[in-house]
Amino acid sequence: MTIRLDHDRLTDTMQEQAEFGKTPEGGLHRVALSNADMEVRDWFVDQLQDLDLHIRIDKMGNIFGRRPGTNTSAPPILAGSHLDSQPNGGIFDGALGVVAVLELLRTLDEENIRTAHPIEIVNWTNEEGTRFQPGLQGSGVWTGEFDLEQQYACEDGSGTQFEEELDRIGYKGEEPVEPAEDYESYYELHIEQGPYLEQTQNDVGIVTGVVARSWGEVTFYGQANHAGSTPMHLRADASVSAAEFLLYVRKIVNTINEKTVGTVGSISLSPNSINIIPSTGTVTWDVRDPDDNSIQAAVSDLRAEVRAISRREGTEYDIEETTRTNSVKFTNGCTEKIQQSAADLGYDFLHMLSGGNHDASHLAEVCDTGMVFAVSKDGKSHSPEEHTSWDDCYRAANTLANAIVATATE
Amino acid sequence: MTIRLDHDRLTDTMQEQAEFGKTPEGGLHRVALSNADMEVRDWFVDQLQDLDLHIRIDKMGNIFGRRPGTNTSAPPILAGSHLDSQPNGGIFDGALGVVAVLELLRTLDEENIRTAHPIEIVNWTNEEGTRFQPGLQGSGVWTGEFDLEQQYACEDGSGTQFEEELDRIGYKGEEPVEPAEDYESYYELHIEQGPYLEQTQNDVGIVTGVVARSWGEVTFYGQANHAGSTPMHLRADASVSAAEFLLYVRKIVNTINEKTVGTVGSISLSPNSINIIPSTGTVTWDVRDPDDNSIQAAVSDLRAEVRAISRREGTEYDIEETTRTNSVKFTNGCTEKIQQSAADLGYDFLHMLSGGNHDASHLAEVCDTGMVFAVSKDGKSHSPEEHTSWDDCYRAANTLANAIVATATE
Repeated sequence: MTIRLDHDRLTDTMQEQAEFGKTPEGGLHRVALSNADMEVRDWFVDQLQDLDLHIRIDKMGNIFGRRPGTNTSAPPILAGSHLDSQPNGGIFDGALGVVAVLELLRTLDEENIRTAHPIEIVNWTNEEGTRFQPGLQGSGVWTGEFDLEQQYACEDGSGTQFEEELDRIGYKGEEPVEPAEDYESYYELHIEQGPYLEQTQNDVGIVTGVVARSWGEVTFYGQANHAGSTPMHLRADASVSAAEFLLYVRKIVNTINEKTVGTVGSISLSPNSINIIPSTGTVTWDVRDPDDNSIQAAVSDLRAEVRAISRREGTEYDIEETTRTNSVKFTNGCTEKIQQSAADLGYDFLHMLSGGNHDASHLAEVCDTGMVFAVSKDGKSHSPEEHTSWDDCYRAANTLANAIVATATE
Repeated sequence: MTIRLDHDRLTDTMQEQAEFGKTPEGGLHRVALSNADMEVRDWFVDQLQDLDLHIRIDKMGNIFGRRPGTNTSAPPILAGSHLDSQPNGGIFDGALGVVAVLELLRTLDEENIRTAHPIEIVNWTNEEGTRFQPGLQGSGVWTGEFDLEQQYACEDGSGTQFEEELDRIGYKGEEPVEPAEDYESYYELHIEQGPYLEQTQNDVGIVTGVVARSWGEVTFYGQANHAGSTPMHLRADASVSAAEFLLYVRKIVNTINEKTVGTVGSISLSPNSINIIPSTGTVTWDVRDPDDNSIQAAVSDLRAEVRAISRREGTEYDIEETTRTNSVKFTNGCTEKIQQSAADLGYDFLHMLSGGNHDASHLAEVCDTGMVFAVSKDGKSHSPEEHTSWDDCYRAANTLANAIVATATE
């Protein structure tokens, strides 16, 4: 059985959700637990009620809506993503994954299709992690990776507590934040946020896993001095060490693995004045690779190079790896279902790894998990320029829908 | 005739002035036109009155005190420096040059020495240029480099106008801001703010001129993108261009001239987030060299390299040279007087260029000018760690005093 979603209604529903937190540039500013997040949640709950789903809201504000199965002993299939956005972000990131499941449930009702397994839609709280850190917060607590009380206590930049804000918007639910039973599998559709699908002219991506990641920070300490009267050979310039580190990050990724990527997103110098030799320079790193061992090798190389850089310039340093996330492998069963679905629908597909983390990374710890990627125009994301054509939204949503139905009717 | 200042009184007077704007770390926070600047000016005027000098305050707040000469047709000799400091700066920068002349005038009175030429002490307004820009403001207007009304209109960070503040502290004088007559010469003593004198174990520096300087800024424009899902070869990373520029500034100075120095004191990236490839990177430069042509060559090289850097990375750029200051050569006559003075006193001296600008740079436009440098411990300045031993203060002040007396008694 191959089902087809309603192309126009999928588009309409995507546009409908994009009204909550809409920006003048056509993007979305719907940061977790903001008023816009509250409004889109209210809208989402209305949609679930219209479908007569069994709605549960847990203590982290994760919202679940279950469509019962015909076999009372068959474990449920969970599917969804997140409705929060980056500050001044785009309308597809997260939302497409929630809307696609909503459309699947509507289509199943319209076509009177019953499934053996229950199908449950989910909107995870605070995937983005820009206002409250860390990201993937709702799914992190639900899967037991994060501690509820710790997340409740975290504060945004103005000192407002997560728990307080969750309560304020009316989404501090009653349900415990954990799977109350075994789940058959978890499916998530997300935009790629990278350029591979577009460049290889594929319709959908079948995500086989998530790459490993290391985040860290180095601070070099030099000697602040007058830019005019300090001879070059007597300098210990923290900015020079910082720049050498930055360019080394750029280079090592080419020596570790063809899939390794490395970024220095942030630098800060002090005193940061045009005519004073900088006394401190702080540089971050973000290195990712499909293989955990490659990340280990990259971090070792970075540490060795920081020693060499500081010796050359006469600076001192502190280095700290702040986060290490191991790679995730999605389950073959789910991946195969998604591939079969794409093939049945006649779509061109690409097996690929995700360079970014998603709620599915947490879910893979508790049940079989699979992910579908939709094409991202020019690979752009986290900005109003983020774009996925309605046809590409439709193809990815159909692929997801048929993989879920195949699993649910087994 | 060789005179000798009073070592202990010089020390005492230095400590006395350091009370106005004193910081807990033993430094000085006496930013131009602040209350501390007002208080030290009141103290300074008291000292001039005690010496029975003819005091004039001009419309820029420059304070002059004249000791008459015996020859009514002999043009006056001007000498001094500035009493304002950097925010959280040191007690020697500027103040030593004013106190040394004060001590000379006291000693001349005590020893009943009359000079043919009048000797005039000066405290220039706002040398540092940290609160109101540009620096060297008082001497700049006095020598005709800057326009009075423009300087009156300039505002500090909180929108307060220069003229208003000058009036508030009671130092908006009546005198026109210009030399009312020809001056024989201008002498200034300043701390070196660099390490050469200490490293070469000399007692005083004879400054033969001020190096030329170029200040500018480059902004590179890349593509903000996800640090995880954007392959390396598809990036246009503004931070990489910024770092390459920084290291190029470090390198070219070694190819232009042995005396060339180059500094990148400031970088800012946007969005400056650990997991986003930076879309813009702004980098400043400060390049100095004794020779104007070398500065021209350095700036041409920087421009050519910026083109190459941006081509390699696929970034765009804006480049702007914001200031170019030509080199200044001090007058042989003054330099020889200073050398003779140091030799007579038995001090080891070094001829050197100043890497930083001083009020003397402006004065060299209107009369013969010479400068003496005092040893800076570890080359440090613009911080509470700025230090010159009392003996080094004394040697530099004596050198200055005897050069002035030699000129004044000719």
